[in-house]
Amino acid sequence: YQLWGGCFQEGPSDVLRRINDSLTVDVRLYKQDIQGSHAWARELHLSGYISDADYEAIQEGLKMVQTEITDELSEKGRLSDREEDIHSVVERRLQLYAGEAALRLHTARSRNDQSATNTKLWMLASLPLLLNEIKNFIEVLVKRAETEIDIVVPGYTHLQRAQPIRWSHFLLSYAWMLRDDVTRLEEQKKRLMQCPLGSGALAGCALAIDRVRLAHSLGFTDVTPNSLFAVGSRDHIVEFLNWASICGLHLSKLAEDLIIYGSQEFAMVRFSDQYSTGSSLMPQKRNPDGLELIRGAAGLLLGDAFAFSCVLKGLPSTYNKDLQSDKEILFRSFDKLMDCLKVATGTVSTMKIDSGRALASLESSMFSTDLAHALVRRGVAFRRAHHAVGVVLQRAATLGVDLRNMPHQEYIAICPEFGTKEDIENLFSWETSVEQYTSVGGTSKTAVFQQISQLKDWLEMKETIVYNNNTKS
Amino acid sequence: YQLWGGCFQEGPSDVLRRINDSLTVDVRLYKQDIQGSHAWARELHLSGYISDADYEAIQEGLKMVQTEITDELSEKGRLSDREEDIHSVVERRLQLYAGEAALRLHTARSRNDQSATNTKLWMLASLPLLLNEIKNFIEVLVKRAETEIDIVVPGYTHLQRAQPIRWSHFLLSYAWMLRDDVTRLEEQKKRLMQCPLGSGALAGCALAIDRVRLAHSLGFTDVTPNSLFAVGSRDHIVEFLNWASICGLHLSKLAEDLIIYGSQEFAMVRFSDQYSTGSSLMPQKRNPDGLELIRGAAGLLLGDAFAFSCVLKGLPSTYNKDLQSDKEILFRSFDKLMDCLKVATGTVSTMKIDSGRALASLESSMFSTDLAHALVRRGVAFRRAHHAVGVVLQRAATLGVDLRNMPHQEYIAICPEFGTKEDIENLFSWETSVEQYTSVGGTSKTAVFQQISQLKDWLEMKETIVYNNNTKS
Amino acid sequence: YQLWGGCFQEGPSDVLRRINDSLTVDVRLYKQDIQGSHAWARELHLSGYISDADYEAIQEGLKMVQTEITDELSEKGRLSDREEDIHSVVERRLQLYAGEAALRLHTARSRNDQSATNTKLWMLASLPLLLNEIKNFIEVLVKRAETEIDIVVPGYTHLQRAQPIRWSHFLLSYAWMLRDDVTRLEEQKKRLMQCPLGSGALAGCALAIDRVRLAHSLGFTDVTPNSLFAVGSRDHIVEFLNWASICGLHLSKLAEDLIIYGSQEFAMVRFSDQYSTGSSLMPQKRNPDGLELIRGAAGLLLGDAFAFSCVLKGLPSTYNKDLQSDKEILFRSFDKLMDCLKVATGTVSTMKIDSGRALASLESSMFSTDLAHALVRRGVAFRRAHHAVGVVLQRAATLGVDLRNMPHQEYIAICPEFGTKEDIENLFSWETSVEQYTSVGGTSKTAVFQQISQLKDWLEMKETIVYNNNTKS
Amino acid sequence: YQLWGGCFQEGPSDVLRRINDSLTVDVRLYKQDIQGSHAWARELHLSGYISDADYEAIQEGLKMVQTEITDELSEKGRLSDREEDIHSVVERRLQLYAGEAALRLHTARSRNDQSATNTKLWMLASLPLLLNEIKNFIEVLVKRAETEIDIVVPGYTHLQRAQPIRWSHFLLSYAWMLRDDVTRLEEQKKRLMQCPLGSGALAGCALAIDRVRLAHSLGFTDVTPNSLFAVGSRDHIVEFLNWASICGLHLSKLAEDLIIYGSQEFAMVRFSDQYSTGSSLMPQKRNPDGLELIRGAAGLLLGDAFAFSCVLKGLPSTYNKDLQSDKEILFRSFDKLMDCLKVATGTVSTMKIDSGRALASLESSMFSTDLAHALVRRGVAFRRAHHAVGVVLQRAATLGVDLRNMPHQEYIAICPEFGTKEDIENLFSWETSVEQYTSVGGTSKTAVFQQISQLKDWLEMKETIVYNNNTKS
Repeated sequence: YQLWGGCFQEGPSDVLRRINDSLTVDVRLYKQDIQGSHAWARELHLSGYISDADYEAIQEGLKMVQTEITDELSEKGRLSDREEDIHSVVERRLQLYAGEAALRLHTARSRNDQSATNTKLWMLASLPLLLNEIKNFIEVLVKRAETEIDIVVPGYTHLQRAQPIRWSHFLLSYAWMLRDDVTRLEEQKKRLMQCPLGSGALAGCALAIDRVRLAHSLGFTDVTPNSLFAVGSRDHIVEFLNWASICGLHLSKLAEDLIIYGSQEFAMVRFSDQYSTGSSLMPQKRNPDGLELIRGAAGLLLGDAFAFSCVLKGLPSTYNKDLQSDKEILFRSFDKLMDCLKVATGTVSTMKIDSGRALASLESSMFSTDLAHALVRRGVAFRRAHHAVGVVLQRAATLGVDLRNMPHQEYIAICPEFGTKEDIENLFSWETSVEQYTSVGGTSKTAVFQQISQLKDWLEMKETIVYNNNTKS
Repeated sequence: YQLWGGCFQEGPSDVLRRINDSLTVDVRLYKQDIQGSHAWARELHLSGYISDADYEAIQEGLKMVQTEITDELSEKGRLSDREEDIHSVVERRLQLYAGEAALRLHTARSRNDQSATNTKLWMLASLPLLLNEIKNFIEVLVKRAETEIDIVVPGYTHLQRAQPIRWSHFLLSYAWMLRDDVTRLEEQKKRLMQCPLGSGALAGCALAIDRVRLAHSLGFTDVTPNSLFAVGSRDHIVEFLNWASICGLHLSKLAEDLIIYGSQEFAMVRFSDQYSTGSSLMPQKRNPDGLELIRGAAGLLLGDAFAFSCVLKGLPSTYNKDLQSDKEILFRSFDKLMDCLKVATGTVSTMKIDSGRALASLESSMFSTDLAHALVRRGVAFRRAHHAVGVVLQRAATLGVDLRNMPHQEYIAICPEFGTKEDIENLFSWETSVEQYTSVGGTSKTAVFQQISQLKDWLEMKETIVYNNNTKS
Repeated sequence: YQLWGGCFQEGPSDVLRRINDSLTVDVRLYKQDIQGSHAWARELHLSGYISDADYEAIQEGLKMVQTEITDELSEKGRLSDREEDIHSVVERRLQLYAGEAALRLHTARSRNDQSATNTKLWMLASLPLLLNEIKNFIEVLVKRAETEIDIVVPGYTHLQRAQPIRWSHFLLSYAWMLRDDVTRLEEQKKRLMQCPLGSGALAGCALAIDRVRLAHSLGFTDVTPNSLFAVGSRDHIVEFLNWASICGLHLSKLAEDLIIYGSQEFAMVRFSDQYSTGSSLMPQKRNPDGLELIRGAAGLLLGDAFAFSCVLKGLPSTYNKDLQSDKEILFRSFDKLMDCLKVATGTVSTMKIDSGRALASLESSMFSTDLAHALVRRGVAFRRAHHAVGVVLQRAATLGVDLRNMPHQEYIAICPEFGTKEDIENLFSWETSVEQYTSVGGTSKTAVFQQISQLKDWLEMKETIVYNNNTKS
Repeated sequence: YQLWGGCFQEGPSDVLRRINDSLTVDVRLYKQDIQGSHAWARELHLSGYISDADYEAIQEGLKMVQTEITDELSEKGRLSDREEDIHSVVERRLQLYAGEAALRLHTARSRNDQSATNTKLWMLASLPLLLNEIKNFIEVLVKRAETEIDIVVPGYTHLQRAQPIRWSHFLLSYAWMLRDDVTRLEEQKKRLMQCPLGSGALAGCALAIDRVRLAHSLGFTDVTPNSLFAVGSRDHIVEFLNWASICGLHLSKLAEDLIIYGSQEFAMVRFSDQYSTGSSLMPQKRNPDGLELIRGAAGLLLGDAFAFSCVLKGLPSTYNKDLQSDKEILFRSFDKLMDCLKVATGTVSTMKIDSGRALASLESSMFSTDLAHALVRRGVAFRRAHHAVGVVLQRAATLGVDLRNMPHQEYIAICPEFGTKEDIENLFSWETSVEQYTSVGGTSKTAVFQQISQLKDWLEMKETIVYNNNTKS
């Protein structure tokens, strides 16, 4: 059953069919296709293009088709229809139930606007699942941050020990990245909410229908403003793929941090058995495969985003078959990201932090900035203080002593403003060090609790919003 | 003059310096660097870490430095300082004017938060320029659409003639794409509006300053919520690059359409001399080089976006030197897109549309959908109507006649619902054809005017908004 | 059945398993996995680590497993084993047939070297299929070029008519591109021919085996020179993906040319029904979907290549689980390219060229270069000749005449060296024009025949080479 | 001075010029442009299209122009000519010296074939510089490997300690990667060696010249076989960019390894002051900025490769202005890679390995595979041995003892084949462990020396080859 071909004398070659057919991919949209067909039939009926009887036959028939396909998929995992796409499958099957009425369903509709609509409906129904996974993950991060607020760990820049920070501050840095990811994905909704149905093949709908009513009946808030744009645009897919690639980058950063922190050398975290794997040759191995797959997934998500943008580059207006790959890439990226979020959440919620080991990693040179700031507080210009501490470090290295054990007179000789022996000794506390950073976004306890409290408020607010205003399917 | 090195015994090698130094790139941020330093000094002063005299010396000194650099750049096009980056240049030069006070400027500040702040300030000042170019372009499109509303041209799908459309409908499809680009770029602003200054190297600010006051003094509305996130995040750059790549895709589509429409075979448009170039070998050539460069630029913008995301992939937390390429890529993409928008606007505003040629390109097979819809209006199921018209086309081909000249009885033989000879003849009008598409987003005159009117309202609204709430620099 | 886990107390979580398991992908390598295991068992046996009986049991068992899996796949299309990968499936199933002996198969082997070997074996067996498709395509191009050598068509630069060329010259330009693709892919073979087996997990083989003998027994010519490099390198995959993306670019260029040439405006070619599709709404449409999918595929192939490179970016030495995506991407790109090559070959071999229409597209301004060269032959400096022809074109435009009809005195007035009326008239022949380009690579008949002859020689030579020296599987 | 414009009434707009002009980029090719012009003039002369006097004037004039431009560039760093490209600059300046003869230089030549030739000449002259840098780097690696062969370090998979390896084995793994990079780049030479000159704008050369003679005079071995392919192909650029991205990936892997090994936690290597940088805020910091920039450069190189491939995607045949970006990207990638290679070589040749610390990192669980192999040698099936060692590890953990200190009876209880106390104790030697891997590519001393010897032979062979057969410029 083919939706075209009246002026053809031969059918497509096997190899063209193989590359052209999309049923194995777009079968995933069968609910949306049927949902859109319900709405389209209703609108044709309200506008007077379909009789009551035909309308009823179509509506009933579509329900039967939906049940039928749902059953087949749950049984066999796939459809064995010979049609090229889900639109053809639904229309052919509809004929079995609705007879002649089925032949009226596609009136003034094109697969161009139909397919664009299906994808948007699917995204509106599915993207909230991603948002939820992210929120779950943020919750895990915030909860750990709260519980483990007293743990101080080395903070790194350039993977070199820099300054001590609270472990919670580290965890929260990811909560904020992911919070922004939620915000960014939500911003895309207003464009997803524009319904393309009624744009026809390219020129619009040739019949006098009410596109706004049609859109509302599908849960959209608005209609696409120009039919050429509507059938040719895949901007919402590009936006999503770009978004997924940013989110993937965040997860890859976390994976990299944790893989390093989980090495025997850092040994700051230890992953649960549930999120570790072993080696077929080396019996002692515990590998963070899940995190590595997440790190790799960032590359795959980026590749998908750029693949599809590259498909769009230099493409003429309106529909061209190049666009067909949109769904395969969309589903692949969506699934990949869902899995990554789940593994990340599972890994983080089950891993152990070794606070003793973390503390042991803090070494006295990490007090350098504190020494410099101490001088600044006593009136030394910062640039001079910075230099003086450099000299202190060199001197300690020459003497082969820890900063904490270097004789007081050595400090004074370099810079008298270092003050008394006690002044200096008072600096050598990790707790004191982190507690200096009280301004917003800093690593002191109050500043970290402020973050926790803000994120909790945000999570609570999201709870009520996200679930209310999405089309369900 | 180097902002570090106290504990080093040897300087960096020449080759490390060459790859490491960023002055040739970040000199472009000198105003932002100085602007940020003004604010930082002010905040240190308000918080009691810098005396009145030092503060005044720094403020006066910074002004001198700014004038000095501005003059040098306008004269020689570049700075010949030997420092590695603009931060070091400004601080060293400041010493000449402010003396010892200059050594206090960097108190509790790191190049990590400083550089992140500079870039955001630059983006807040510069992105509105892009928005303006896009709005200018939309205005040109809307104006042409209004003036040339009576011109009917072939609409294509798959680059095959499909249905007649209004030329204005085509122009407006791009106006809408670009309108969405504006919206998307504006959405990024709320994240750009978070000031990273006061995040230090990674742990926050060790002194008791007021980051919110500081942020406001720079025109930001908010502060970054976590210092680790603040110094390590380049999400705003990624967002911008991804955005630029979408905008580039839109322009590449327009370029492709116009290059094809400007071929001698289509000959629908003709470009002005100002936007055409010739050949060094073939005297007759007129080439649309500008449009080809725009089409190519989409690839370059995508490449830049991909490049930078790939840089970020798998990077550990906080600042790593890999991030240094952010500015070079940002500036390159920004400049490229600005040029493309200008060339696109110039090309579209000066090209001529050949309405006669466009009309001549409309061929009777493009009435096929109209024939089908005519049958539908007489009660024929659409799928049957679609098939009947296929048969009509084959019959006309066999007879070797144009649809408009095929004998009436041939139609009736295929499907009696085609009606009288007059009924059929009435269909054969391009004006009638396009006027069917009256629903929102369609190609009828009213539907197109509705688009024009919406876009005009939007342009008017933007006029007042965009200019008010941006930080100026 | 899990090849590890001795020191674990809990199994992997469901979500980790879902992201970690690769059986659905690497089942495609079951023959290679078994082939490699045959060879490994043989080498262990020859080196004295496995008894005769165990060796025989393993060899027989592997054969049974292969038959069993082949049957299951041909029946159900997939394996329902619960193991995480094909290696585990084969080893567990082997136990059913070989008993205890099966537990000796993995001696001193790691999945790291095993998996790398499987992939190389697969590539060595499969890439020749691609080479064959390309050669078939080149044959089709060369054959058409030979048959249709008399057809002259417009040659374009910047999609603007430039100079007349032979249609065959156009076809052959693709034959050469593809010839280079063959050469490039063949160059990769020497690296594919290095066997990684015996590299263990990372440090090499701890038993005294003969890796060269082992490699030869699998059809490899050489062994990988360093075990760390061997288990961590996916360079051969990257090389292939990059290669596939170049080949995809060539096909996308052909697709773009043909889509444009197949538009009603150019109408230079017409595609067969077998390689065209229609519209669900517009009965008259004939769309070149196959070519559009090929054009789009170039983006997908590029995306895959860059995805995998991005996965590798910044990855530490040796095996990391990020590498696991290599096979999915490899298979996807391979299959996509195979389909594209087949559709391209089918489209080109069944399309019709409209030589009359092509001839009609040649317009007199395309003689401009010929006019300039005529002046050059009479001693006018080229740059002056180029300018004079520009003036001729402007004059003709002013007079509203075709170059061929412009009065002789007009030519003479612009440049006396144009010669007699007859001299000029003699230039106005498309055949004469193309026959000027006699130097190598030009569009004259002899120069084109020279290309045909070279390509035929090359094809003949390849016939004998390619089939001899590849490992078969 | 413009090489076209005879039929134009207005010049290009400023903004078109800005995007269109390429002089700032292609000035880098002035030597190649002049070199090509010398050859072209010579061929026109030999073929009888230019008189002796004109030929001499052109040759002399070109020399003057070359001197003049060389001087200007060394003085001011750029040309201030108003021409759009280097071709126009050379031709205009040539007129000053050669007068009317200069107007004959461009006879039958197009900027299309000229520019393609220039780029190939530049690549043939410049790529050997990259090869040399790589060879230098390999030499450094091989030399260190030889000197430091006794150092044993932990080998990692998944960044988890796996088996002990020789430090030299690690270094050599990179030598081999880079050796393959050399091979791959050399393979591209045969395609670079095909001269495009004489392909005209697209159709070939309209005059009877000898393209093979012309090609040889420029140092090429061959000519491009089809003029359309010649002017439109940028495959050699794509090949190079893809190659550079692979090479960049190798360097990024090295960078990642070394950054991690240089962290205070691993502390296996320490970088020299010359290849370290500090922090503006934290006096103690020593950052591996060079390595981080190398790691980041891999993303930039990949981005450039992707960008240019994306430019080519879907582009019609022959020359389109989109191709203009080829040179900017080529130069950028070339320069970036050169710098990275130099920094990598410098970093590796000056860093220190801490063999004591490395040794201390080896922990007894890394003997696990050795324990398993010991059982295998005593007849235990590998899979059982693997499991037994897993139990050993768990037992040791329960007892809280190091494997080396676990009581003998514990081993025997788990698996009697562990043998005597002495048997087990003999296993606990890192030297013994690495010396097991004697097969090719393994980490035993002989196997590593074999690698060193092979690489030395290869380096010696390369010495004589690379310098002989390249065109110099």
